[in-house]
Amino acid sequence: MDNSLDQATDIVVEAFANTPNLRLRETLISLTRHLHDWVREIDPTMDEWKVAIDYLTRTGHMCDDKRQEFMLLSDVFGVTNLVDQLESRKANDGATETTVLGPFHMVQSPRRDLGAAIMSPKVGDPCWVAGRVLNIDGTPIPGATIDVWQADDQGFYDVQILDEVDVGVGRGLFTADEQGSFYFRTVVPAPYPIPTDGPVGELLMATNRHPNRPAHVHFIAEAQGYHSLTTHMFVEGSDWIEADAVFATKRSLVVPFSWVDDRTSAAEKGLPNPHREARFDIHLARMS
Amino acid sequence: MDNSLDQATDIVVEAFANTPNLRLRETLISLTRHLHDWVREIDPTMDEWKVAIDYLTRTGHMCDDKRQEFMLLSDVFGVTNLVDQLESRKANDGATETTVLGPFHMVQSPRRDLGAAIMSPKVGDPCWVAGRVLNIDGTPIPGATIDVWQADDQGFYDVQILDEVDVGVGRGLFTADEQGSFYFRTVVPAPYPIPTDGPVGELLMATNRHPNRPAHVHFIAEAQGYHSLTTHMFVEGSDWIEADAVFATKRSLVVPFSWVDDRTSAAEKGLPNPHREARFDIHLARMS
Repeated sequence: MDNSLDQATDIVVEAFANTPNLRLRETLISLTRHLHDWVREIDPTMDEWKVAIDYLTRTGHMCDDKRQEFMLLSDVFGVTNLVDQLESRKANDGATETTVLGPFHMVQSPRRDLGAAIMSPKVGDPCWVAGRVLNIDGTPIPGATIDVWQADDQGFYDVQILDEVDVGVGRGLFTADEQGSFYFRTVVPAPYPIPTDGPVGELLMATNRHPNRPAHVHFIAEAQGYHSLTTHMFVEGSDWIEADAVFATKRSLVVPFSWVDDRTSAAEKGLPNPHREARFDIHLARMS
Repeated sequence: MDNSLDQATDIVVEAFANTPNLRLRETLISLTRHLHDWVREIDPTMDEWKVAIDYLTRTGHMCDDKRQEFMLLSDVFGVTNLVDQLESRKANDGATETTVLGPFHMVQSPRRDLGAAIMSPKVGDPCWVAGRVLNIDGTPIPGATIDVWQADDQGFYDVQILDEVDVGVGRGLFTADEQGSFYFRTVVPAPYPIPTDGPVGELLMATNRHPNRPAHVHFIAEAQGYHSLTTHMFVEGSDWIEADAVFATKRSLVVPFSWVDDRTSAAEKGLPNPHREARFDIHLARMS
């Protein structure tokens, strides 16, 4: 019962000392110390602490199978990016840089043939995206899987506008050909705000922070024997490219989406002329 | 876009720098630094981080109007106790020590007359509880309000056994008389485990921690012109008194519940002879 302000942290650390799993034990003891350090630094009243508890509760209540408000909170606190940075520094040199998964990978992407349109290229800037999945030494990886998802030209994912589009629009699961190549038709995505109708939006509002992300296309590339890789391709010149609300932009992932004026090539690709084209190669590291 | 591991914390601190409310700004910047320090120390994989996000989500989903799992989580991490300790060190010397509110003050206590039974004294050890609400110099505070709630002799609060008892059983809202005195009939509460059917119970299980709290009666004392005070009276000799799962026991709050054998006094109090009696004076500090 040695309960004093001096002892208030050590008694909790001691309580966690018998955790059988060493990784869990270290994690919880470290959390206890850092959490208590924060609380001691800000020295809150119990009423203030209840505001924090209420905030976490409302964040939990905002989560369902279509919305992960806690991951969004982690995103705007830069923790998701930090974890990605920590993890990716262990990755093999030469692999494509990773970035955050984001909150919109909540439905299975429909399997599509190479060259297919993941959304109708009739609204917005029609666009051809092509690339290859390669080993870090540049060898193609035939049969690699490329999972793609993106917002439309207004910045909306399918799941946000299900009264207008079917689920799966703007998504595609592709298999690379014998040269490791993948390619598909789409439109150039627009920048968009992360969802602001929940506790995370409230936080951004209270802190004078904007909710916007620069335009991007999500990728997960996988191949047998390789580390799977989660990343974005960012649209060069997009608004917010220097001020991503979730801190996930990396220079090596910014790609030009140039206008191409070539009637023959456009006809071959099934796209209007002119249209825009972006190229994104993905280098995977072999599992050791 | 200066997004590197070195910069991953500073870019978030910078993003919060324009928060208009100074207290909120300091709190969030301090949280960012301590949270990132923890994450850098444990160096999690993204998969591990998702386990944490899922844990928080399930904790939020466990909360409703009868259950506050996040406060319970704060309790078992000793944070509620820490905040209480931080707040109470600012309190005036001479006031009764405070302790945590706990998760069961979720319904309004029914208004009762002095001497009333807050639960039937027929099951368990019948008990008389009496005390006075006093200024820190010992002057009575007539008309002070005393909000009381407690578990029964099996360790259950009304809200946990609503198929057996009415809401309000084990609770009472009393008004002190002209001498600042309050008194009521009840049974001696039993120790009990905090709820273990949610994420907090999962945490205790995974860390080999027991969920038990020593037997206690909750009090909130309030009077006009005084700081209101939230505390417990602990039952001397109770199991777990040296190992409270939520770290809330304080030596000054442990009170003997002695057997009294006095036929006349028992008859006056409307209790069987013998019965137990506990005395708990509450000293409030005047608002300055």
